[in-house]
Amino acid sequence: MGDLESTLWSLTSGGITAPSGFKASGIRAGLKSSDNLDLALILAPHHALCAGTFTQSIVRAKCIDLCKERLLFLDGKVRAILINSGQANACTGVRGMEDSLIATKAVAQKLGILESEVLICSTGVIGEAIPMENLLKAVNPLVDSLSSEGSSNAAQAILTTDLRTKEIAIQANLGHQLVRVGGIAKGSGMIHPDMATMLAFLTCDVQVPKEIWDGMIKRIVDSSFNAITVDGDTSTNDSFLAFSAGNAIEKNFYHELEIGLNLVATFLAKSIVSDGEGANCLFEVKVKGARNFQDAQLIARTISSSALVKTAVHGCDPNWGRVLAAAGRAGIEFDLEDVSLWIGPFQIMQHGLPVDFDRHLVVDYMQKIVRLENPKNDILSFSLLIGSGAFDAVSWGCDLSSEYIHINADYTT
Amino acid sequence: MGDLESTLWSLTSGGITAPSGFKASGIRAGLKSSDNLDLALILAPHHALCAGTFTQSIVRAKCIDLCKERLLFLDGKVRAILINSGQANACTGVRGMEDSLIATKAVAQKLGILESEVLICSTGVIGEAIPMENLLKAVNPLVDSLSSEGSSNAAQAILTTDLRTKEIAIQANLGHQLVRVGGIAKGSGMIHPDMATMLAFLTCDVQVPKEIWDGMIKRIVDSSFNAITVDGDTSTNDSFLAFSAGNAIEKNFYHELEIGLNLVATFLAKSIVSDGEGANCLFEVKVKGARNFQDAQLIARTISSSALVKTAVHGCDPNWGRVLAAAGRAGIEFDLEDVSLWIGPFQIMQHGLPVDFDRHLVVDYMQKIVRLENPKNDILSFSLLIGSGAFDAVSWGCDLSSEYIHINADYTT
Repeated sequence: MGDLESTLWSLTSGGITAPSGFKASGIRAGLKSSDNLDLALILAPHHALCAGTFTQSIVRAKCIDLCKERLLFLDGKVRAILINSGQANACTGVRGMEDSLIATKAVAQKLGILESEVLICSTGVIGEAIPMENLLKAVNPLVDSLSSEGSSNAAQAILTTDLRTKEIAIQANLGHQLVRVGGIAKGSGMIHPDMATMLAFLTCDVQVPKEIWDGMIKRIVDSSFNAITVDGDTSTNDSFLAFSAGNAIEKNFYHELEIGLNLVATFLAKSIVSDGEGANCLFEVKVKGARNFQDAQLIARTISSSALVKTAVHGCDPNWGRVLAAAGRAGIEFDLEDVSLWIGPFQIMQHGLPVDFDRHLVVDYMQKIVRLENPKNDILSFSLLIGSGAFDAVSWGCDLSSEYIHINADYTT
Repeated sequence: MGDLESTLWSLTSGGITAPSGFKASGIRAGLKSSDNLDLALILAPHHALCAGTFTQSIVRAKCIDLCKERLLFLDGKVRAILINSGQANACTGVRGMEDSLIATKAVAQKLGILESEVLICSTGVIGEAIPMENLLKAVNPLVDSLSSEGSSNAAQAILTTDLRTKEIAIQANLGHQLVRVGGIAKGSGMIHPDMATMLAFLTCDVQVPKEIWDGMIKRIVDSSFNAITVDGDTSTNDSFLAFSAGNAIEKNFYHELEIGLNLVATFLAKSIVSDGEGANCLFEVKVKGARNFQDAQLIARTISSSALVKTAVHGCDPNWGRVLAAAGRAGIEFDLEDVSLWIGPFQIMQHGLPVDFDRHLVVDYMQKIVRLENPKNDILSFSLLIGSGAFDAVSWGCDLSSEYIHINADYTT
């Protein structure tokens, strides 16, 4: 979170329950065969506003359709999110929707709110239905354990095979108001890709008008979750839901608020990439000088998802040819003669031609980061200047290792 | 080449020099540090017609631009192709074009033809220029060793990291004419042609009008080279060049001729995937019932290039969730309830839901193929029926193994 240094925001504790009025809980409902927590609930205060973004996949879980419908129907005025881990409840036919309806109804009744004010997110194995008897038995204790210190339990309960929880809270004084933004996420990416669902939840204790909130959330998703790649495979259940609840905030603080939201979303997104078994190291690709943000991001993501770039990072090889080749196939026009490339602080190319760089220094720089002998916690970075415009974008990826193959070839449905 | 059984075409020997009038050679010019052959030449008879398709990448070698210019300028009437392996001659600045001009001029002078009738294709490390002194010294012996039995040497000389040569010739009696089609190719990494990520050359000893030939070549490239993927990475130098030379052929044989051209191109394309870096096994993805060919091919290629599907194949895991998830993110609309899936002869899904298949039988089927204990030489196939239209497409991919990581993490620019 080095980015915090240049802003008004500072780290605080409490995760998604740091913002005033939010409660959460996470318990073991017996949905997984392990002893891990597997059912979570997030409760927002009255009058909260929720914005959501979801997987673009044609093959998606029915809970996604339910979330979209309810957000649309209630203009974002939902109150609670139930999250089960272990079963994706995708490709489960009519049961997919039926079970989602039954589960949210049970939670709504216990909470004393409308059924349509409850959303449900599922993560786990595709094709497996939720053990509903266990889930329904767990609704009472789940609601009873809701608390304003419940974020960590919820962050635990949404994991599948993640190695670490992903949780953050930040705060800032915007005018006279102390504003807090919290978030949790899960994403196993390279670990058990059948469960490669990315779920993330954000809370904030000031309120902005719906169209402003929707716009902020769309923009921060574009530059955080939509900028990461683990293996190019998207899941059937990806969801990001963001609550705004509390006092209104003055317009002149919107920009600063969005900076805070972006810090939380980016932290969670990078945590997902970092936490891949088989991934030793996160790297970032900065593309500068594109004609628009979309072009810059497409080039950055094409580079960060290239198998040849990812293996070059793993091998600590400053293989600039692979970076250029990936940039070239992104489908975006640029002039090779305008291209410059840096790896970390080292310039590798200028005007489309390799410069006479000291290979040993660059390899050493890459090795220190990849082998985690990196006291400053630097991120390995590729910076590509394509020089045709004024727009920049960043994408984050991770190295591709033999561990990835072992895990994914040996994992069985 | 089991496909041959249903056609007029049969296998013959001689590769690209099987068609009458073609000569080829391949020698060691000392471009590579190894003792391998590294310089090849293909000479077509007078009045030959050449069609070419090239990488779509923005970052492409200057030799690509030269080939395109000369094919356009001469309406396809080129005579010779020089191919050097070891250096891609891409990202080498002005030298890229200068050296291509010098090399083709030297070959043209020795052959006594126009400089613009000679094309050049380069393959090897990006950013490295051709050792021109060695190349120029080798022009005389290269031309002197041209022969109508030279295909195998040429097929050897164009390889880089390939383990095997890729060479074929077929023949058929079309009316009163014996027609031969030959081909050679190279390619094993950076294979995800957006046209043709590799080098391949085809010869044919009957002639058809230019617009007919260009159309045939475009179509066969779409269903062969553009249907394969090894690692999703497109290269800077991909080229496919196809010669038609000899007597004219009657219109009513055009269809049969295209079948033969397609057999050769498909054989070469599949050979490239089989010889993919670290690959144990080729697999095919058939998508049926799409609204058009492009939709079917996009879904098929998204599946065959999915890291999760490729590792599932490597692990002999009938992981249908990964196949469906990949299909869903291709960006093509279809109704999940219309989807059926087969792995080999085993049905796995019907109407969007898994059927009760015998997992052991399917794993056994996959293991026999992946472990090469497969006397019939079956190809591991996934057949996905999406049921929304009348168009089909096939794509070929290979498993993703730890070998791929070792090769590409340890390989150094």
